[in-house]
Amino acid sequence: MDESKIFLSERDMPQAWYNINPDLPAPLQPPIHPGTGQPLGPEDLAPLFPMALIAQEMSMEPWIDIPDDVMEIYRLWRPSPLHRAYALEEHLGTPARIYYKNESVSPAGSHKPNTAVAQAYYNREEGIPRIITETGAGQWGSALSFACCVFGIQCEVYMVRVSYDGKPYRRLLMNAWGAECYPSPSDRTEAGRSILAEDPDSPGSLGIAISEAVEVAAQADDAKYALGSVLNHVLLHQTIVGLEAKKQFEMAGDYPDMIVGNVGGGSNFAGVCFPFVKEKIDGERDIQIIATEPTACPTMTRGIYHYDFGDTAELTPLLKMHTLGHKFIPAPIHAGGLRYHGAAPQMCLLVSQGIVEPRALHQKEVFEAAITWSRTEGHLPAPETAHGIRAAIDEAVKCRETGEEKCILIGYSGHGHFDLAAYDQYLSGNMVDYELPQEKIDAAVADLPEVE
Amino acid sequence: MDESKIFLSERDMPQAWYNINPDLPAPLQPPIHPGTGQPLGPEDLAPLFPMALIAQEMSMEPWIDIPDDVMEIYRLWRPSPLHRAYALEEHLGTPARIYYKNESVSPAGSHKPNTAVAQAYYNREEGIPRIITETGAGQWGSALSFACCVFGIQCEVYMVRVSYDGKPYRRLLMNAWGAECYPSPSDRTEAGRSILAEDPDSPGSLGIAISEAVEVAAQADDAKYALGSVLNHVLLHQTIVGLEAKKQFEMAGDYPDMIVGNVGGGSNFAGVCFPFVKEKIDGERDIQIIATEPTACPTMTRGIYHYDFGDTAELTPLLKMHTLGHKFIPAPIHAGGLRYHGAAPQMCLLVSQGIVEPRALHQKEVFEAAITWSRTEGHLPAPETAHGIRAAIDEAVKCRETGEEKCILIGYSGHGHFDLAAYDQYLSGNMVDYELPQEKIDAAVADLPEVE
Repeated sequence: MDESKIFLSERDMPQAWYNINPDLPAPLQPPIHPGTGQPLGPEDLAPLFPMALIAQEMSMEPWIDIPDDVMEIYRLWRPSPLHRAYALEEHLGTPARIYYKNESVSPAGSHKPNTAVAQAYYNREEGIPRIITETGAGQWGSALSFACCVFGIQCEVYMVRVSYDGKPYRRLLMNAWGAECYPSPSDRTEAGRSILAEDPDSPGSLGIAISEAVEVAAQADDAKYALGSVLNHVLLHQTIVGLEAKKQFEMAGDYPDMIVGNVGGGSNFAGVCFPFVKEKIDGERDIQIIATEPTACPTMTRGIYHYDFGDTAELTPLLKMHTLGHKFIPAPIHAGGLRYHGAAPQMCLLVSQGIVEPRALHQKEVFEAAITWSRTEGHLPAPETAHGIRAAIDEAVKCRETGEEKCILIGYSGHGHFDLAAYDQYLSGNMVDYELPQEKIDAAVADLPEVE
Repeated sequence: MDESKIFLSERDMPQAWYNINPDLPAPLQPPIHPGTGQPLGPEDLAPLFPMALIAQEMSMEPWIDIPDDVMEIYRLWRPSPLHRAYALEEHLGTPARIYYKNESVSPAGSHKPNTAVAQAYYNREEGIPRIITETGAGQWGSALSFACCVFGIQCEVYMVRVSYDGKPYRRLLMNAWGAECYPSPSDRTEAGRSILAEDPDSPGSLGIAISEAVEVAAQADDAKYALGSVLNHVLLHQTIVGLEAKKQFEMAGDYPDMIVGNVGGGSNFAGVCFPFVKEKIDGERDIQIIATEPTACPTMTRGIYHYDFGDTAELTPLLKMHTLGHKFIPAPIHAGGLRYHGAAPQMCLLVSQGIVEPRALHQKEVFEAAITWSRTEGHLPAPETAHGIRAAIDEAVKCRETGEEKCILIGYSGHGHFDLAAYDQYLSGNMVDYELPQEKIDAAVADLPEVE
């Protein structure tokens, strides 16, 4: 039997990130300033991001060198292994070959440090001593805490209160890396105070937490803001994942016919699939690319492709993306990282062009797949990650029926060590699926901004 | 800069475990039957263990082949990586070279599956459909749950109630792998019922949980018992760790001058160091081997070397080991895996012969080391693992002072993802160190069994 883990040596680690912008099959429509209705210029973003990241956000260079200091931190866990899921294949009795690119091996347990480290680095290069961010369930906040820690930057995280109270472990992880973490809404910002004045017991939301973080960063001379997904430069940094995977497939003498993964903001899946997308756009390879999402938050499958705000409070620029409307509040499913009303503009463009195929999944079928995975491959996946696993299993079962020997690559975005309460709910039979009525979507997208 | 991770290919994975028994510098004194005072025979152990494991327990063969089916499961995460801790070295400014053998990459997050998989396999080979065990904080219980799951064996775990209630995540992990987990004391056994009759709110103890598991296994026709440390066959299975590390050092062109790690029952540290010990016994290499333990449970540094029971309830055979007395109850430190009154007889023999050097550490200095590690190397270690890290840092700092370029190997036994409450206590300044008065030890060892 061949090796089930394909390791790339550190010296073969990709030296540059892949920028998909110049290869996109149609031009990416620019972010729009909500006040002027005009495309955003670099100066509009300058209060929030260091110039190097703003330049990356708008770059048309196909390759962007990874700085040595970023490479040095990446080496703590990168290149990440590419595994062949022999045990799952055998369990399914499928002729398909199933691989997974394992981003759960990072210190924070997911793909998020790939961009957190890069963002912290560019902030340090511009002498920024503090970075402010928000976090939902805590994946991004913990990744940025780690990255700031290694570059000697103070990190301040606004964490949605319901998670702050209910998921203390991720908050404690941020503390272990020296970050300050505040429940949002907080009394530290005007945005927070105004929410608390109306509802002192507000559970918070990602929209509110973004407002708080942006407010603090915009008003401080010594601080910038950082975002963990959606934006071009974030997706750019994640391409290290797919670039490594390409080299590993070469080592294995194989190549994916199909790439599956999960999309919340879209950065982890972009990281896995963008380096393969070019060959699909160029017609060199016929790769099926399946982006999964929850039926409770069906951004790409049922949202509309339209300019919208990135946050509830209408503070961010307008982005052209699939959206359920920026006021949409999804049901409380357990894949917290996938509860976002929009998605990355680059990913949405590929969906609109038919290059990426979206697929919505119910959470019970997703957890069923997670259990099958844990009982064959051993490791416990994050609920977000289990969406891609579900799709892979479904496709591998189709192969069993048709006899097709497809090669399937799963973007394994993170482990589920902090999600065991969700597993408990599933195993005890208390998990429910949510059907989203069309009226709710219609209502949520009724008042989108009037930019086309 | 050289690679910081040394990966062994699966085809180079060791094919046999190393049995230290024939190489020990003095004969290992046998386990004694507490009733007869005579050495235990295989038939005495037959109600509890499959014959293949009993044979391994007593074997004098230097090498024992690893069965193919065990190798196949090992391949899910093995060979585990050997890392060079460059970031820590740089932070310390030490000329020492610090390596760590990373067992945290297993599905259960520690070294425990190395023996759990082997034990489940031999039980399956003898047609045993159920395995019963106990667990303290849950590391062993989760590892055995995983192992039983992949071999189709039902697993029943008696978990100390205070952990069952206070550390639900490890219990949920067992459930995810299909095991049944009961708080101990339970009303399912005579041992449990008699404790509950006296104290319905008993928090339980490892001693009680062992009694329950042994009772169930001994009385059932279809079930055996499994132990996660201390016994020879458990340590044997863990030697895969050190055997891999030896090959990886060869690949790196280096060799350890010093091996540090933590000892609770002793299995993880035995796994790392036994394959190197032979060269020390034979006088071929001058390796310093440092086994750390908590000052709150200083088995090897302050216990006496004497026959004692393995459990509080005096149900187990007597083992010749360093012991604080089987009624000793250590302070509630956070390294739950190191709160054991005794240690593996093989390890204790090496301590008594001066080959392994024990060292006791306070928990605050241990957590300080864990934080230094997390903020340099990234990954969060288990509190148990952090004991070895503390010793490595102390030794590396000595090298900075003397200029010695020592090569230090740390046995990195597991991650701390389920130990964040302990980190919180340390970071918030609420952790305390425990000084153990000599009178308490004197009292605890006063009534040891009268076997020499």
